[in-house]
Amino acid sequence: MMSKLNGLVRIAPVQSSKKPHCAVGQSTIRRPTVCMTRDSDGLSATEEEIMHATHRALVNSGYAELSISLISDELDKAKSTIYHYYDSKDALLLRFLRFTVNRFEETINTSIGDHPKEDLNHIITTLLPCDLTEEKRQLHSILVTLSPQALEQEVFREQFTEIDARLSTIIEKTVRRGIDANVFRAADPAHVAEYILATIKGTMYSRLTTNREAATVAAKSSLSSYIDSHLIS
Amino acid sequence: MMSKLNGLVRIAPVQSSKKPHCAVGQSTIRRPTVCMTRDSDGLSATEEEIMHATHRALVNSGYAELSISLISDELDKAKSTIYHYYDSKDALLLRFLRFTVNRFEETINTSIGDHPKEDLNHIITTLLPCDLTEEKRQLHSILVTLSPQALEQEVFREQFTEIDARLSTIIEKTVRRGIDANVFRAADPAHVAEYILATIKGTMYSRLTTNREAATVAAKSSLSSYIDSHLIS
Repeated sequence: MMSKLNGLVRIAPVQSSKKPHCAVGQSTIRRPTVCMTRDSDGLSATEEEIMHATHRALVNSGYAELSISLISDELDKAKSTIYHYYDSKDALLLRFLRFTVNRFEETINTSIGDHPKEDLNHIITTLLPCDLTEEKRQLHSILVTLSPQALEQEVFREQFTEIDARLSTIIEKTVRRGIDANVFRAADPAHVAEYILATIKGTMYSRLTTNREAATVAAKSSLSSYIDSHLIS
Repeated sequence: MMSKLNGLVRIAPVQSSKKPHCAVGQSTIRRPTVCMTRDSDGLSATEEEIMHATHRALVNSGYAELSISLISDELDKAKSTIYHYYDSKDALLLRFLRFTVNRFEETINTSIGDHPKEDLNHIITTLLPCDLTEEKRQLHSILVTLSPQALEQEVFREQFTEIDARLSTIIEKTVRRGIDANVFRAADPAHVAEYILATIKGTMYSRLTTNREAATVAAKSSLSSYIDSHLIS
């Protein structure tokens, strides 16, 4: 199970030599990622298998092709098994979103430590990797694809609300640790976190929906400047 | 025609007293908005009527209900008139997006002047108004709703690319004017523009797809701090 989980939310290595202009912050030294060894989702074994099958189907076939049939092929069980737990593809993807954020959160929590600046850069680079692998692109695409559902359906709004709140909390805690350690200047950690998250999300959406690759690099570069000049004491 | 155009992209007044924490920047003094008096879309009279009918249908009925039938009702012409110009609702909405951005751009270009800091705040407040009117919500919702199309269809990607490029250029020119006038510090105007645009877009998307209203206020407040401390000389 551990290797599967590791595969799902593997942290992209920082590209320090190939694309230095894309890296956030000056320090690109990373400690090795510690994998989480347990699952905190409270999912049954079958549900967890469905989550992993969804992940494999997504990476192998892409979002546009994703279907309950493809997922059941990856699961090697009948579609009725999936429908026993999830009424629709959207319901399954909604749960998969949460599952992915849980994995992401666990990985971040176990891989960040006592270096708030490096930890913050690590979080940003994880959410906005220099090289967007096909795996990450498919996962980010789910966010873009499910967003319109959140305009009309409260259950989707709640899921997006929870995802943003959790990402924001991770950033906020890191900023707060930095302030407490005098690595960062005094600032409102919650405000800074929302600001960084908004910039990351805007960059993530633009990266997927436009052909403006240079804009991604520029936005990340300015985010790095902001952290260096505004946050670093 | 002028009043229609004015109605389409009316600039929301800055909420200086009700929600001061939401306003961007310190200065909330605005010159009156100058309305554009001509159309630069190169649309035929009928196409322009279709655009205005789409706008009215959107504001009156909301995005979820929007249909070619509703638009043709507003147009007071047969649906075949619309299909003569646009193959599908998506094709029409894609054109409507460009039409709206054209109007926005013209209004901004005629209402901003020789005060780069106020002009920049004005652009941000126009894209991220404190009070999101139903009209603005519907227009922003089109962006969220059409985004998934851009993941797969190049024609949508190109439209989103153009919209972002034009918004970025407006911000960049304003920043450049500020630097030239020694109102802003020396900085890379293109980088700053992409950064501000990314933050605006992330905030705009989160505002529509989550229940985190305080996050919007926090992100705007931090954007204001960034401009004050990073950009203002």
